[in-house]
Amino acid sequence: MGSIFKRNLGISIFGESHGAGIGAVIDNLPPGIPIDPGALELEMKRRSAAGKQLATPRKEKDQVEILSGFFNGRTTGTPLCGVIRNTNTKSRDYDNISRNARPGHADYSGYLRYDGYNDYRGGGHFSGRLTAPFVFAGAVCKAVLSEIAPNVIVGSRVVSLGKVNDQKHLAPEQYPLLDMDMEFPLYTAELKEKMMREIETAKAEDNSVGGIVEGFITGLPAGIGDPFFDSIESVLSGLLFSIPGIKGVEFGAGFDLAEMTGAEANDAFFMDNQTVKTRTNYNGGLNGGITNGMPVVFRTVIKATPSISRQQETIDLTDRTNAILSVTGRHDPCILLRVFPVIEAAAAICICDFMVKTWRDNSVK
Amino acid sequence: MGSIFKRNLGISIFGESHGAGIGAVIDNLPPGIPIDPGALELEMKRRSAAGKQLATPRKEKDQVEILSGFFNGRTTGTPLCGVIRNTNTKSRDYDNISRNARPGHADYSGYLRYDGYNDYRGGGHFSGRLTAPFVFAGAVCKAVLSEIAPNVIVGSRVVSLGKVNDQKHLAPEQYPLLDMDMEFPLYTAELKEKMMREIETAKAEDNSVGGIVEGFITGLPAGIGDPFFDSIESVLSGLLFSIPGIKGVEFGAGFDLAEMTGAEANDAFFMDNQTVKTRTNYNGGLNGGITNGMPVVFRTVIKATPSISRQQETIDLTDRTNAILSVTGRHDPCILLRVFPVIEAAAAICICDFMVKTWRDNSVK
Amino acid sequence: MGSIFKRNLGISIFGESHGAGIGAVIDNLPPGIPIDPGALELEMKRRSAAGKQLATPRKEKDQVEILSGFFNGRTTGTPLCGVIRNTNTKSRDYDNISRNARPGHADYSGYLRYDGYNDYRGGGHFSGRLTAPFVFAGAVCKAVLSEIAPNVIVGSRVVSLGKVNDQKHLAPEQYPLLDMDMEFPLYTAELKEKMMREIETAKAEDNSVGGIVEGFITGLPAGIGDPFFDSIESVLSGLLFSIPGIKGVEFGAGFDLAEMTGAEANDAFFMDNQTVKTRTNYNGGLNGGITNGMPVVFRTVIKATPSISRQQETIDLTDRTNAILSVTGRHDPCILLRVFPVIEAAAAICICDFMVKTWRDNSVK
Amino acid sequence: MGSIFKRNLGISIFGESHGAGIGAVIDNLPPGIPIDPGALELEMKRRSAAGKQLATPRKEKDQVEILSGFFNGRTTGTPLCGVIRNTNTKSRDYDNISRNARPGHADYSGYLRYDGYNDYRGGGHFSGRLTAPFVFAGAVCKAVLSEIAPNVIVGSRVVSLGKVNDQKHLAPEQYPLLDMDMEFPLYTAELKEKMMREIETAKAEDNSVGGIVEGFITGLPAGIGDPFFDSIESVLSGLLFSIPGIKGVEFGAGFDLAEMTGAEANDAFFMDNQTVKTRTNYNGGLNGGITNGMPVVFRTVIKATPSISRQQETIDLTDRTNAILSVTGRHDPCILLRVFPVIEAAAAICICDFMVKTWRDNSVK
Repeated sequence: MGSIFKRNLGISIFGESHGAGIGAVIDNLPPGIPIDPGALELEMKRRSAAGKQLATPRKEKDQVEILSGFFNGRTTGTPLCGVIRNTNTKSRDYDNISRNARPGHADYSGYLRYDGYNDYRGGGHFSGRLTAPFVFAGAVCKAVLSEIAPNVIVGSRVVSLGKVNDQKHLAPEQYPLLDMDMEFPLYTAELKEKMMREIETAKAEDNSVGGIVEGFITGLPAGIGDPFFDSIESVLSGLLFSIPGIKGVEFGAGFDLAEMTGAEANDAFFMDNQTVKTRTNYNGGLNGGITNGMPVVFRTVIKATPSISRQQETIDLTDRTNAILSVTGRHDPCILLRVFPVIEAAAAICICDFMVKTWRDNSVK
Repeated sequence: MGSIFKRNLGISIFGESHGAGIGAVIDNLPPGIPIDPGALELEMKRRSAAGKQLATPRKEKDQVEILSGFFNGRTTGTPLCGVIRNTNTKSRDYDNISRNARPGHADYSGYLRYDGYNDYRGGGHFSGRLTAPFVFAGAVCKAVLSEIAPNVIVGSRVVSLGKVNDQKHLAPEQYPLLDMDMEFPLYTAELKEKMMREIETAKAEDNSVGGIVEGFITGLPAGIGDPFFDSIESVLSGLLFSIPGIKGVEFGAGFDLAEMTGAEANDAFFMDNQTVKTRTNYNGGLNGGITNGMPVVFRTVIKATPSISRQQETIDLTDRTNAILSVTGRHDPCILLRVFPVIEAAAAICICDFMVKTWRDNSVK
Repeated sequence: MGSIFKRNLGISIFGESHGAGIGAVIDNLPPGIPIDPGALELEMKRRSAAGKQLATPRKEKDQVEILSGFFNGRTTGTPLCGVIRNTNTKSRDYDNISRNARPGHADYSGYLRYDGYNDYRGGGHFSGRLTAPFVFAGAVCKAVLSEIAPNVIVGSRVVSLGKVNDQKHLAPEQYPLLDMDMEFPLYTAELKEKMMREIETAKAEDNSVGGIVEGFITGLPAGIGDPFFDSIESVLSGLLFSIPGIKGVEFGAGFDLAEMTGAEANDAFFMDNQTVKTRTNYNGGLNGGITNGMPVVFRTVIKATPSISRQQETIDLTDRTNAILSVTGRHDPCILLRVFPVIEAAAAICICDFMVKTWRDNSVK
Repeated sequence: MGSIFKRNLGISIFGESHGAGIGAVIDNLPPGIPIDPGALELEMKRRSAAGKQLATPRKEKDQVEILSGFFNGRTTGTPLCGVIRNTNTKSRDYDNISRNARPGHADYSGYLRYDGYNDYRGGGHFSGRLTAPFVFAGAVCKAVLSEIAPNVIVGSRVVSLGKVNDQKHLAPEQYPLLDMDMEFPLYTAELKEKMMREIETAKAEDNSVGGIVEGFITGLPAGIGDPFFDSIESVLSGLLFSIPGIKGVEFGAGFDLAEMTGAEANDAFFMDNQTVKTRTNYNGGLNGGITNGMPVVFRTVIKATPSISRQQETIDLTDRTNAILSVTGRHDPCILLRVFPVIEAAAAICICDFMVKTWRDNSVK
């Protein structure tokens, strides 16, 4: 299937990079939730290339028109559809993609999956552009959370960019206190310049860089989640791996747990006044797939943008012969600059999905 | 929800560690698939503690009784239910767990999730014992794959155990040639002794160890998968994070991609005779969530068994006071010894789910 | 897929008429619900042929063994699995069914659907015997409703049997006052004898009879349900048409609405003290797929048992030639006698699914 | 949830009667399906009030803009989104609906379901206007069927309108030969005038009329469908009851089966040359929820339009007092005139969902 998420919430994402428009339908939202246009616009802007010097020259305004499910400034509870028109498309950049598959992209696998009928321009439905409706859905879920669970905060930060590394693990009590720049959230703010130089260098060399971004959710009550296929880890990783370019997801100490013993990795419980806490948070706030009240902390690796203007070896899809490709078009030398609201959207959708209340639940009790 | 997986296949897992029995119902299997009792038994044995010197002293035979969906040695296509009786239970080991939450376990989060009504004995539904029906479902899916996609091979290997590391990345062409021990699959077989010593040391110190296991799927056709929420990465990570103790999942070069440039990370396509291949496989056989014909390679980190007999700090669930816990019961000092068929089950279920054919599909065409 | 229902509740039904056993797994039940063994046994007995003179001579005890999800007399909230062993099977009755399709049964369509690999004995997974786990799931849902919505009552009654008709439409205020026999619920109790004679006559003539059964749900709060695909009508009809032999479902005045004008069919609202009511209930308690607080009333037609011992024209599945079949085996001349708990199960599952609460919902608020 | 259908196909319907726009997203369509704009427009026109003398004076053009999933005249296989702008809205007609619930409508139940935040204008998301995107989805599914199963024909006909009845049951061999007017399909064409007079009379009396419409699907292969919750009856009735105003669904002989014996109701199989057929078709082409190769025949009752301009008794939602309502606005005295493509859409979506093929299925084999 692919582009419909259906659990407690329903989210249906549609669109292609160079089609008429992209968007999302969100079903089963609680009714009566106010959505602040400014907050929505801010999230869209964090993702947009507009105003970002080191981002792609394709600057889309990403203005969302809400077609339904929104009345007198609040959600109605019926499907909320937001549409974003594509305004800045140069399809001719993609003329040769119809034949030469870009390495690291879905051009080849998508061509086979869709029997050659997919819209190849700009990667079509597989384009990073589709993260715009994803962020829109995330912004709506953040608005819901701020009503039904006002203590919940969803955030993200750069852990590494190229070869520049910030501090990997923070103590659990640091998360609620983080005060980072929303545009480029960094624990050690001084590293920003060094990281920007990584991007500039890559750009100058017709290359690109990736990195690691951490997401976190604080203020969650304990006891949210389900066993097995609907563990918080399962649902959240499923959402994160929906995002183009993400190739790894870890929770808490993640892969560092491999060298830790049980005595080290177990997060000891203790009472902090009336509250149950753990001394450490190597399990990332999750035991058995269910929140334990500590911050949910996860890390994702985002690979370097595969679209680079260097010559690359590839194949011609039609002739099945070897070919040489220079990706033209307009691309980001580092998508990390725009990925924060996307990763936060995955977290907000996941948590909102688990916590969403409808009128029904309130009335019956 | 939690314990029902429903996509193309349906899998419903039930049971508790110390209840009457555990099992799985598998729906929408193709009809007419033979299931070799020996192959099924072998998978169950790979997971079982029986015959494993360094595993828990609770040795269950894990004999599966198939109640339905199996007739004259073949699947019928209607739900196949397998039940495993719990025979070797010592509930009194868990008397104090009803009050003292084991750190690193779901005792506390599960207590809240289920309002105190969950079966706490041995972790109940959250016990590693529930991986037995998961392996059963995986074995059935392997049988299906061997019929409908006989070139597909699902395997796994230890990448690290405690502080002992084997080679992390193998070249794509090595995967089809791997000839490893099924009980303890290791690329560098000579490391086994050193790894076993890690376990022995942990055991002697009332401690436990974790590690990293790689899974791989070879022989897949290109073009399998879906965008967004049903990318292979999304579905497979969702299944992997269902497995107790797994805290990280990465594909291809995974977190090492953070320091690679686009020029390095892009897997260049080329024609190898009539076949499309990539020079490297840093994307783990997946572009845009869809197979590209190269081996699907993923790594998971498994934390050290949280049940250790050392004294640990914790809380009393009922009184909400601090407490000291010594986990008695019978436990594995390292679950890696038993996790291979579990990880392979996740991979087999995922791929079988994407590739499954019903009579319907055959007949209509 | 077929045999897994997954909405708020998950229900997985498995088994065949002449296999080892049948059963159901129910997931996402609220924890802490007591299940009275006597109430469960009573529901199973209402469906069972045991003790019913005019029912099939195959008398199964239908004893449910609960394998999981039930601890100290209450639901745990994790999957509850109930298994019923088949004890009274005479497979040799079905020897010729493997070749000659019984008219009115799924022998032919199932043979094609499963490519000939289905268990044909007694209809296999399509047998009316599979209503036993369905009733089990319904009994569990009734137990849940009696805790979370104690005013809700689910009932059913015969509207017609063969050519004997009871009063079709009752006034809405009559429903909460109905005091009918649980074994054979009839508004006009005196019609029972006449109806039994219909069955006796059919039996004597190697024939069978059908009829119409009404189901009703009283005590529902207004505002339960969803638009479109998850209207109460959609979900409930989906469950009712799961029951073998049901070929029609109508709500409120149902097909009689065809001849009614808008002025007649509109149920006028009025205030009855503090309560909103409607003067009539031609819409069966549902407007726009959502409850309006009046009794939900629906009717189902159940066709005459297709298994009759008369000679019937049919085909040989293997040879694809015309054939003559005399169904031997042991059958009901009228399944209406046993269908009441099955229809009530569909209603209880539907309503429970919409109203179910988990710990999560309670705790977050 | 409500407005997302997710099985093999995904369909997400959004919009309100008097909002900016309405539409549907259709996911998992096979790639490469041509969609004829003329055929699409025709279906939309059959549902539209435009050009229909006895329909509502609100004449919408219902022009669908396809935003995605359609490239070079064919489906891409990624989500196809169609949007229809609302152009002819007079919201002030609905000023008093915000207080006085229209009998027979979802005003009251929807008000409670959505805690008063739903868009009440014209019934909002519950309006019959939402059948426009439903018909759009049906037209797309018809296009798919004409490619992947070209023998399949979906049709409908009036069985009764008000008190005028056409022949209820047709012989199975008549269905492929029916040649009826697409605008008002009637077996006995001469009855049209009499039926139109029923509408005119109702209109003159500020009243409305309903009726019965039969749907049918011919050319289906045998063996399509699933047991239990995914029987063709279950899925199709779930879709049909999504349509506002439908209160009953029956298959084959439907409720008339109540008075038929087994010997009468069983459809005897016989070989007609190489083809398996049944003598009669009282089971409506379905045995055990699975097609048997005969026409699938079903009937639905559509109640009279609840919006009538006569004075009606009702309640004031805000004050909870009795009130008198005269529905102004613009309404249909008989929605049967526009319901044919809606009912056919349900049938086309259902069958397409069961038969849909993706590239994946083709390639693997």
